[in-house]
Amino acid sequence: MDLTALKNDVFRRNLELVEHGLVVLTWGNVSGIDREAGLVAIKPSGVPYAGMTAEDIVVVDLEGHAVEGRLRPSSDLPTHLALYRAFPSVGGIVHTHSPKAVAWAQARRGIPAFGTTHADHFHGAVPCTRELTPAEVADDYELNTGRVIEERFHDLDAEAFPGVLVAGHGPFTWGPTPRKAVENAVALEQIAAMALDTLRLDPDAEPAPSYVLDKHYFRKHGPGAYYGQK
Amino acid sequence: MDLTALKNDVFRRNLELVEHGLVVLTWGNVSGIDREAGLVAIKPSGVPYAGMTAEDIVVVDLEGHAVEGRLRPSSDLPTHLALYRAFPSVGGIVHTHSPKAVAWAQARRGIPAFGTTHADHFHGAVPCTRELTPAEVADDYELNTGRVIEERFHDLDAEAFPGVLVAGHGPFTWGPTPRKAVENAVALEQIAAMALDTLRLDPDAEPAPSYVLDKHYFRKHGPGAYYGQK
Amino acid sequence: MDLTALKNDVFRRNLELVEHGLVVLTWGNVSGIDREAGLVAIKPSGVPYAGMTAEDIVVVDLEGHAVEGRLRPSSDLPTHLALYRAFPSVGGIVHTHSPKAVAWAQARRGIPAFGTTHADHFHGAVPCTRELTPAEVADDYELNTGRVIEERFHDLDAEAFPGVLVAGHGPFTWGPTPRKAVENAVALEQIAAMALDTLRLDPDAEPAPSYVLDKHYFRKHGPGAYYGQK
Amino acid sequence: MDLTALKNDVFRRNLELVEHGLVVLTWGNVSGIDREAGLVAIKPSGVPYAGMTAEDIVVVDLEGHAVEGRLRPSSDLPTHLALYRAFPSVGGIVHTHSPKAVAWAQARRGIPAFGTTHADHFHGAVPCTRELTPAEVADDYELNTGRVIEERFHDLDAEAFPGVLVAGHGPFTWGPTPRKAVENAVALEQIAAMALDTLRLDPDAEPAPSYVLDKHYFRKHGPGAYYGQK
Repeated sequence: MDLTALKNDVFRRNLELVEHGLVVLTWGNVSGIDREAGLVAIKPSGVPYAGMTAEDIVVVDLEGHAVEGRLRPSSDLPTHLALYRAFPSVGGIVHTHSPKAVAWAQARRGIPAFGTTHADHFHGAVPCTRELTPAEVADDYELNTGRVIEERFHDLDAEAFPGVLVAGHGPFTWGPTPRKAVENAVALEQIAAMALDTLRLDPDAEPAPSYVLDKHYFRKHGPGAYYGQK
Repeated sequence: MDLTALKNDVFRRNLELVEHGLVVLTWGNVSGIDREAGLVAIKPSGVPYAGMTAEDIVVVDLEGHAVEGRLRPSSDLPTHLALYRAFPSVGGIVHTHSPKAVAWAQARRGIPAFGTTHADHFHGAVPCTRELTPAEVADDYELNTGRVIEERFHDLDAEAFPGVLVAGHGPFTWGPTPRKAVENAVALEQIAAMALDTLRLDPDAEPAPSYVLDKHYFRKHGPGAYYGQK
Repeated sequence: MDLTALKNDVFRRNLELVEHGLVVLTWGNVSGIDREAGLVAIKPSGVPYAGMTAEDIVVVDLEGHAVEGRLRPSSDLPTHLALYRAFPSVGGIVHTHSPKAVAWAQARRGIPAFGTTHADHFHGAVPCTRELTPAEVADDYELNTGRVIEERFHDLDAEAFPGVLVAGHGPFTWGPTPRKAVENAVALEQIAAMALDTLRLDPDAEPAPSYVLDKHYFRKHGPGAYYGQK
Repeated sequence: MDLTALKNDVFRRNLELVEHGLVVLTWGNVSGIDREAGLVAIKPSGVPYAGMTAEDIVVVDLEGHAVEGRLRPSSDLPTHLALYRAFPSVGGIVHTHSPKAVAWAQARRGIPAFGTTHADHFHGAVPCTRELTPAEVADDYELNTGRVIEERFHDLDAEAFPGVLVAGHGPFTWGPTPRKAVENAVALEQIAAMALDTLRLDPDAEPAPSYVLDKHYFRKHGPGAYYGQK
């Protein structure tokens, strides 16, 4: 099977993290999945973006067994795989330590939906997970990170909430494609910054009314969407 | 009629939003009007700035009927048209989600005129609209966004206040030309940032005295202006 | 007399304001003086940095009479001239609306010397002027802006304090050359940002002890200086 | 002995300070050591990064005696040398005035380990030194700066805490190589910014649990590390 297209896509999306100012050093990774083949392509671990090539992208199956590539995959791979297993509609996943989203994660707070910028991407507050337990950290830490995200989404739709803050850690975002997952990572960092400044101006700021959030979310998503081109 | 000049102008001003750091992804749009012809040129909806060409710019009449272009216009078009109809001196309009201006909009607060940077562009506080009602959001949302702006300006001069914050949403700015509308979008984001930091240093900061605001506004605007070249 | 060198220097320093991120649009200007000739070169008023050439730089005498150049000088020229007359050691002057320094000016507060970054450039708190009176604004506003700065410096040394905040307006900096004046504008914006964040971490933060401020100031300035090359 | 490789390395790392946005003007320096030869290469004092060449890098022995180079070394050299003498595992040292780290230093506060970004680089709070005494400032100021850092580390491991804030001054970071020291300077500025915003969201924010800090630190460092390539 030809994995070139998937690897090229994942390669280019990883570079976009740098272009969008979401990562410094090697602090982020993008993966993509070929659902038919059951294969996931992901950034190699600890490799600088500057020298990386599409050939460096690692391919594994959904249990994490190596399929292609001579480098070790991102140490966050088990989290990515858990999310691909939990959310069947997801085609791409992004993890970064973008600074404003991390600030909310470190404060262990979800981000209230203060306005339409938020509502264009998340259909309500950006959720924040609980902290992992000592046992969850001691064994299979990265896998358990995926599981606490899944737990947080037991009553949330991963399409309507395309991202999460892991408490004390940082953001994961996703989407139907790696490109969309990166867009959601960009959007999340922006709304994290805007929400911080909103609280500075009004510590008791209220979320936007639900009829505004619904309107903005549904004009971009779902059957009645009219934003963008057909 | 040759619409090339108008389309080229609007095309270039849309790219300036990126160059000035006012937008990420596809979060903004610029339009321009040919008052004699009664035609408006505007960014197509959801199209990335990077691949866009001048040919992609959409032309419509003042009721929004398509005149030229094969793409759908920005979903914010009805807001732009409402403002062109309400403010006859306006030649260009900009909408962005620039982060500091959005923070004020999300806090539902106008921006006090704390200093001369502000007064060089706005002859008093930047106004903030009321929130739209459920009915206004349910039908003709984008048109009603224009109407609440118009309502907010019932006692304000759109030349002296070349922009507004829509509550819970973000900024719209305008000017005699698309170029001037972009300049006002840049200025608004700067004064939004400066005012946030001013309040951090003094939560009870007072606006600058009216004689200072008048001086700065009138040295750049109106018959006695002496800023810039003749 | 050949003014080419002075005009080229002032031209290049104006472009540095953009490179250092101190200005947007046309919000700043640099001037330089040839003390022997008694001539001042300054940016033309309201001209964008992008298209400007060295030929556009305007030359005037110390009373502001045009000597060379076909454009109008910056409207801030009378402030620059007042400072050249008041401070004989000054060879270059910069005015910007750099956002963090403006925030302090809009809060009508001088910037405390919280650390060594500050002390490397200012030998104590950055001073802030009083507000101008209605009469001072009504007539000769820009000249009077220079005069309130001079008034603020009646007991301060313009060499040890190479800049000031004009209340409600923004920063002016200076130095023995236009290049040094730009460096002080860069330094002032940095220490304004650092001081804002210092107060966020400790609203009651105290200035650094005077023996630290003296040490840092004098290792860079004066007869015992040992920073830099001989 | 051929010092070309060391000088080239130190030269390139100094330029990285600019590329990473950690310094303006001449506000930072990187040094590297050849432990076998007992020689240290460091940036020359007060030389702009733009015009600097690898030939400008100064080489001295561990007592500071000139070995190679026609320029004066950075005035911070005695601090660097004290750290090389105190911490035998250190191969490179960075000093900057990066703004968010300076804000913490000016507030005389160490940076709490609020999350995993922090824990990936520092095995606990970033330490802050005490203020220097008048006597320590009066004589051998830069040497004494190194000594208060050493004093602060009497019960800390310089490998597990690869950096420090000097009270009222700013950050020093280090690592096994100059490249790693620069990476730690980048990381420190990021976590300083994130921690500031975390406290904005929750003034009583608690550090991450020690089992999380241990996990993240040890997955990147030490015998069981599994981050990055073999």
